[in-house]
Amino acid sequence: MKIIEGGVTAAKGFQAAATAAEIKYKGRTDMAMIYSEVPCVAAGTFTTNVVKAAPVKWDQNVVYNRSHAQAVVCNSGIANACTGAEGYGYCKETADMTAEVLGIPSDSVLVASTGVIGMQIPIDRITNGVKAMAPKLSDTIEAGTEAAKAIMTTDTVKKEVAVQVEIGGKTVTIGGMCKGSGMIHPNMCTMLGFVTTDACISKEMLQAALSENVKDTYNMVSVDGDTSTNDTVLLLANGLAGNPEITEKGADFDTFLEALNYINTCLSKKIAGDGEGATALFEVKIIGAETKEQAVTLSKSVVTSSLTKAAIYGHDANWGRILCAMGYSGAQFDPEKVDLYFESRAGKIKIIENGVSTGYSEEEATKILSEDEVTAIADIKMGTATATAWGCDLTYDYIKINADYRS
Amino acid sequence: MKIIEGGVTAAKGFQAAATAAEIKYKGRTDMAMIYSEVPCVAAGTFTTNVVKAAPVKWDQNVVYNRSHAQAVVCNSGIANACTGAEGYGYCKETADMTAEVLGIPSDSVLVASTGVIGMQIPIDRITNGVKAMAPKLSDTIEAGTEAAKAIMTTDTVKKEVAVQVEIGGKTVTIGGMCKGSGMIHPNMCTMLGFVTTDACISKEMLQAALSENVKDTYNMVSVDGDTSTNDTVLLLANGLAGNPEITEKGADFDTFLEALNYINTCLSKKIAGDGEGATALFEVKIIGAETKEQAVTLSKSVVTSSLTKAAIYGHDANWGRILCAMGYSGAQFDPEKVDLYFESRAGKIKIIENGVSTGYSEEEATKILSEDEVTAIADIKMGTATATAWGCDLTYDYIKINADYRS
Repeated sequence: MKIIEGGVTAAKGFQAAATAAEIKYKGRTDMAMIYSEVPCVAAGTFTTNVVKAAPVKWDQNVVYNRSHAQAVVCNSGIANACTGAEGYGYCKETADMTAEVLGIPSDSVLVASTGVIGMQIPIDRITNGVKAMAPKLSDTIEAGTEAAKAIMTTDTVKKEVAVQVEIGGKTVTIGGMCKGSGMIHPNMCTMLGFVTTDACISKEMLQAALSENVKDTYNMVSVDGDTSTNDTVLLLANGLAGNPEITEKGADFDTFLEALNYINTCLSKKIAGDGEGATALFEVKIIGAETKEQAVTLSKSVVTSSLTKAAIYGHDANWGRILCAMGYSGAQFDPEKVDLYFESRAGKIKIIENGVSTGYSEEEATKILSEDEVTAIADIKMGTATATAWGCDLTYDYIKINADYRS
Repeated sequence: MKIIEGGVTAAKGFQAAATAAEIKYKGRTDMAMIYSEVPCVAAGTFTTNVVKAAPVKWDQNVVYNRSHAQAVVCNSGIANACTGAEGYGYCKETADMTAEVLGIPSDSVLVASTGVIGMQIPIDRITNGVKAMAPKLSDTIEAGTEAAKAIMTTDTVKKEVAVQVEIGGKTVTIGGMCKGSGMIHPNMCTMLGFVTTDACISKEMLQAALSENVKDTYNMVSVDGDTSTNDTVLLLANGLAGNPEITEKGADFDTFLEALNYINTCLSKKIAGDGEGATALFEVKIIGAETKEQAVTLSKSVVTSSLTKAAIYGHDANWGRILCAMGYSGAQFDPEKVDLYFESRAGKIKIIENGVSTGYSEEEATKILSEDEVTAIADIKMGTATATAWGCDLTYDYIKINADYRS
């Protein structure tokens, strides 16, 4: 696998564009378009929140009920959530305008929104934005980067990545971009991911790959435990790499999955590390678990614990909070068998052995925890299953971003 | 029901004392003792955390396997959690010394600790504290108050309450104290509650009353979603009120339960309102639910949402976050039927009707949310079940308390 430059325009036949439609922000781009020169099979995963935004409902219909998709239109600023029939109607108007300017079917257009909940989108500005983007579509790396910037809310960095693998003697490229975890206005709590590939793969296997992989990647990220109404990951495959079509599990599927896993893991860590107000990416690995499910439950409980997150911000080797969070997770284990380590660029240290302190050096632990990427590893000595979750520290800026919106 | 002054010494035959044992703090009391002149039947509810502190294990044995209890000894500063066999041995030494100085059986002594996890308690200071408290035991209101102060960690106010009811022609008193939600040192995340009554009630009915009632009171409180290793509520009944013994459900049991519910609700709200760094008590009521379980799930999801808690701190009528938190709770409901209100001393306002904004006045909403006790009421229009959860806002001071322990 080879890591290359770029994002959603890295794979053959994909173009992108961005524009400043003034939906809510001034002086920055706030709409992005992705277009494939040929129809794609599409896979998607969506928020499990009972309250689903209008674009989520629109996309579910396209992904689940249509054979192909060819374009994605995304806006930042307003989430088009809790907007009733009117909001859903705007999804259709957006798709209709996109279909018209690109000469493709309306039901092959996917839409996505992120921003304030409960506010209607200004549909005229959206359709004007669509018209402005169509002639600017380009397959350059820069065009992909512009799209990645346009979908940001208060993300502090754009998030994109691309890789190449060899499948059936052909070079297959996968590239993606995402946004998430930053907020300027209230309710901007959406994770959006867009991944494009020129792999030739059946719709069924594409969805299987994505559904399987999000469990280990995006679903293992938590910034604040609040699952958005808009969360969406879309994966488009246009087949232009010319590899023999992947229609079943096997070596080719595994190669594709490995590349997809790299893209999604990379984007997931970018979201966690750029969490609201975060100063550090916090990774939690559970090893020696009896089952994968147990490892997932334990790692997620630790990564979402407010007390643990505040301790990470304080560079404090506060292992009691980690053991406590594992204890209330709902998973069973023997606290008196747990070994716990902290690890970062600055080194690795064993903090507890069989549930009690090793008498470690607080100074050394603080040094390790002062890096901007820190990992806690808990070995529960029950088996061989593992899981990794990603989050961030809990800081003053998280409160500032989420409480002070009127200031 | 009559609300009276006092706490754990309000009921007949109960005495209390406190002392400064210098377990971890200097210049303040840090041990408390409760003693009943006659043996009590005892009920208890304990943390569900897999990681249980030594005193929790000790008390579970006394409450579940012994017929009576007569004293409680509690220290603040060190939690005696994750301390292995050594820590459990210290519980026994504490109980043995208490038994010796009070002339009661060792297995009728309950112990409780709150403070830092993973550190051994200085047992000599504990046993010296026990010896110092025994001669100071007193049944005055002041003695109860001193005990309530000694168990505080960074609670900013002592928490006690007492009521009287009439049962079988006799005046029955219930009084209680608790601590929780304040932190000075890391890992101090323990809720402890001690309730005493002179009611004559069987051990079985006492436990039934407590187990039933904690579901609606302490278990509906969340400051940060972190369930402690030490959480304990103990209820002692010594029978000195002389009412006919309550041995089954019926009018007398209901009267007792009503009084107990008042005590526990009052103490629960005191904990929530004094949450770490809190500026406001945040109450969430779900009404119109199909089942109690559904209402509980929804109310707890809202009260623990970091985004919602930060919005309450900002006095921001951020209803999208509340609907979002209901949506990811795991409970099913129709978002497009929800009505939502905010209420406080300053008034009541309808924010959304059938899932969309009522076009309410932001100014009026902010005025209502600027009080130090605010309530969100969501009507999901599916039935008649209700639930109320209590929490607090999420503030800069929460981060300060939990991250800056080295400063």
